[in-house]
Amino acid sequence: MTTDSSDSSDSSGPGSSADASVERVAPLPPFQPPYYVVVFTSLRTDEDAGYGETAGRMADLVREVPGFLGVESARTPGGLGITVSYFESEEAIAEWRRQVEHRAAQERGRAEWYESFSVHVSKVERSYGFVRE
Amino acid sequence: MTTDSSDSSDSSGPGSSADASVERVAPLPPFQPPYYVVVFTSLRTDEDAGYGETAGRMADLVREVPGFLGVESARTPGGLGITVSYFESEEAIAEWRRQVEHRAAQERGRAEWYESFSVHVSKVERSYGFVRE
Repeated sequence: MTTDSSDSSDSSGPGSSADASVERVAPLPPFQPPYYVVVFTSLRTDEDAGYGETAGRMADLVREVPGFLGVESARTPGGLGITVSYFESEEAIAEWRRQVEHRAAQERGRAEWYESFSVHVSKVERSYGFVRE
Repeated sequence: MTTDSSDSSDSSGPGSSADASVERVAPLPPFQPPYYVVVFTSLRTDEDAGYGETAGRMADLVREVPGFLGVESARTPGGLGITVSYFESEEAIAEWRRQVEHRAAQERGRAEWYESFSVHVSKVERSYGFVRE
């Protein structure tokens, strides 16, 4: 983590939503296939040290990846977390996988923050949406 | 809805988890690709009438679909819901889409329960998992 890493999750901008992964309410609209979704489901440990800052930093960093489309995240009271990340291409996913700070965060995730997780890398074949009028 | 429909979400069995979509904590393990994920993201309306029973009934019904692998669901305090359903094949998804009670529930969802939603039907190309030892 750099010395900038705590900025992302703690500072609040003009809007009320400082952390999009927690406070965002409306679903992202469907994109035009083909595109990719990475479904990350997880159960956290009780270890919170560094988690919030790192999650915020990762949310900032992934937005710099060319071909990143968006991310949505929710967690049940029982502890199951679901994060869905949307990318234009496999190459965009590969670039995010190679990102150095992201690799370090993943390593720390396995060492400290996650009891278990699953990752499903998927190509979207069909998408649709509904918005109440 | 049939007269059986309220059983699923209100009755509790010997375990403490009557509604797997809310109380489940551990992520499903990755399956062997290829398989399919249907990502459903939503924002609810304030209309709750019938929603819980129908959700419970759908959770029961989908388990009867040949090729259904599992479902995971979470919602943020801000109202964003994410449900990920796993299927062995496109044919399994098609069968679930044709299910008569499911179609009626979807119609009621658009009429009453959802402010907006997005659906991403995706083929999993790669999956992996981690379990702490």
